Amino acid sequence: MKFIIDRDQLLTAVQNVMKAISPRTVVPILTGIKLEVRQDGITLTGSDADISIESYIPAEEDGMVYIDYIEEGNIVLHSKYFPDIVRKLPENKVEIEADENLKITIRSGKAKFNLNGQDALEYPQLPSLLAADSFEIPIDLLKSLIKQTVFAVSTMETRPILTGVNMKLIDQTLTFSATDSHRLASRTVPIAETGIDFSNVVVPGKSLNELNKIIDDSEEKIQISVTSNQILFRTKRLQFLSRLLDGNYPETSRLIPTQSKTVLYFNTKELLHTIDRASLLAREERNNVVRLTTKENNMVEIASNHPEVGNVTEEIAIASKEGEDLKISFSSKYMMDALKAIDYDEVKIEFTGAMRPFIIHPVEDDSILQLILPVRTF
Amino acid sequence: MKFIIDRDQLLTAVQNVMKAISPRTVVPILTGIKLEVRQDGITLTGSDADISIESYIPAEEDGMVYIDYIEEGNIVLHSKYFPDIVRKLPENKVEIEADENLKITIRSGKAKFNLNGQDALEYPQLPSLLAADSFEIPIDLLKSLIKQTVFAVSTMETRPILTGVNMKLIDQTLTFSATDSHRLASRTVPIAETGIDFSNVVVPGKSLNELNKIIDDSEEKIQISVTSNQILFRTKRLQFLSRLLDGNYPETSRLIPTQSKTVLYFNTKELLHTIDRASLLAREERNNVVRLTTKENNMVEIASNHPEVGNVTEEIAIASKEGEDLKISFSSKYMMDALKAIDYDEVKIEFTGAMRPFIIHPVEDDSILQLILPVRTF
Repeated sequence: MKFIIDRDQLLTAVQNVMKAISPRTVVPILTGIKLEVRQDGITLTGSDADISIESYIPAEEDGMVYIDYIEEGNIVLHSKYFPDIVRKLPENKVEIEADENLKITIRSGKAKFNLNGQDALEYPQLPSLLAADSFEIPIDLLKSLIKQTVFAVSTMETRPILTGVNMKLIDQTLTFSATDSHRLASRTVPIAETGIDFSNVVVPGKSLNELNKIIDDSEEKIQISVTSNQILFRTKRLQFLSRLLDGNYPETSRLIPTQSKTVLYFNTKELLHTIDRASLLAREERNNVVRLTTKENNMVEIASNHPEVGNVTEEIAIASKEGEDLKISFSSKYMMDALKAIDYDEVKIEFTGAMRPFIIHPVEDDSILQLILPVRTF
Repeated sequence: MKFIIDRDQLLTAVQNVMKAISPRTVVPILTGIKLEVRQDGITLTGSDADISIESYIPAEEDGMVYIDYIEEGNIVLHSKYFPDIVRKLPENKVEIEADENLKITIRSGKAKFNLNGQDALEYPQLPSLLAADSFEIPIDLLKSLIKQTVFAVSTMETRPILTGVNMKLIDQTLTFSATDSHRLASRTVPIAETGIDFSNVVVPGKSLNELNKIIDDSEEKIQISVTSNQILFRTKRLQFLSRLLDGNYPETSRLIPTQSKTVLYFNTKELLHTIDRASLLAREERNNVVRLTTKENNMVEIASNHPEVGNVTEEIAIASKEGEDLKISFSSKYMMDALKAIDYDEVKIEFTGAMRPFIIHPVEDDSILQLILPVRTF
């Protein structure tokens, strides 16, 4: 096995597959990076059994030659050392060679590394998915679907199913929703005719976070294929495979109130910063609770207090108010998470009393919904 | 006590004094920030008993008004909450008020914080130093003296005196030196006539690191005053007081070899990067040892190996070589620290055999000296 490759191309691919590699895996060889060298290009693979990432570097693309002098072969490299080595190589051309004794030689400029490799045959075969039952959406849309929901997954292992994001595709409408049973985040988007429907696909939040890190904002399409226990995200150069969570995702739609008693319209950033300041003195042990109270002439008071330290109150102007006055307490963290996930200037918050969940969405966009359960403080 | 102040001025001062405050101090009130409000300006104080920092904000400077409506008084504020509050205030004007019950009110825009303060009378009196016995140097020069030496202090408590930097002022020459007994870093600078001499002033490395963080590079002068057990650094707005370490600092000059058998001239960056690459496979348990070997026609080989993982060798061209050939092993970390402290393009390394300490300094500047003890590897 031998080839000469562009370091930057190699580095990007290595950094991508590293996202799947965990130093503490039960299968020792999975701490390594698998290299498959073919005439058309090189595929790197990293996996922790839950997530598997394949990153492909074409030998040539749009007239650019990335890889040269290719002798085919496979090898597994130490993921603890290889990434740093690649990053610090003196020149942009790297020659990598492996002999039959799995001895690897890496040359760049006057630097020469000899590493012990492992046999690629010992690397577990990754379950490969057929592209059947798949659909496509733009990468940047997928990224916003993830950002607007994944933060709301549960971090507790008590109900494992809630540590994932529920994906639904019904009647050409794709829905992502996540809840930790104190708040809910959901986003729907219409998609082109696919011929497929599913409703109980639950992707681990961790998987989506890693995926979001390695796909760059772009309008290019990403292909999504789903089976009963796995999901595959595929772009031109990347294959991201994740297991799905077992079990039935709870029906969340009934949590969402259908009518409201008070509706408030805020400037998103203003509200976010006000809540942020109020949370400075919110009592940790009570999950940073802040209190919202409607006031005269379109003002709302945000307040919180810390028994030993002191208290904070701030008035914020609202664009308008519909319905009755209100006094309600909630987690400042949940509210800030929700507001950060909404990148519109104006938000609409619909309340149905101090003890009922309330919902937040952009004034101009109902496809984004954030729901928060209030906290009883009296 | 009451005043209206420019938030950015306040924030800078708060961040400065925070550098001295430790959340785990034996004297509870030292977790607070002391505020002294006078007609001419405001002084903030933070201290952990070892280090005390005073940051002064003038009411007015160069026609700029920083503080307004001043009612004099003193108070101690919670350092856990106050800095975040100041940082996140909505507007650049901040009104701070304290009543006789130590209740503090902070107002900015529509935000209002009520905090419980503590009595400034309970705040320990900081030992104040007279400006006598003091001398001055430019701030940027002090910063480089610190950067070029402090990294070499010992982190072990076994010999506390070595955790400090030894300052000497003899015959108008100021010397900083630090050693952990495996390596030595030293820098000398000429000083204008001061009339004072001292040789056993040992400043805790931690103090100098904190000082370096809060003084900005500038050609302005900083005044340094020394007593038997304390040192004071003073600028227009800052007073940085540190205790000195007790005990006699070892005489380090005799460690420095006077003649050499091999002299090598390197490009500093090239050598640094080569050592960095070699250290990737250096064995941690042996403090990242790398081997340097002189070769034919002005080449030097840098190599290291890791029994399980592999090995690395790299040849680097030297500008020139004087004296005999050499094969020597040393800590790559110490070498990299030393090279980073030298910001000249060319370095000269003088060896006196594989078992003797060797010294590194810039080709054009003998005032910077780095000494490293080799490691026996055979």
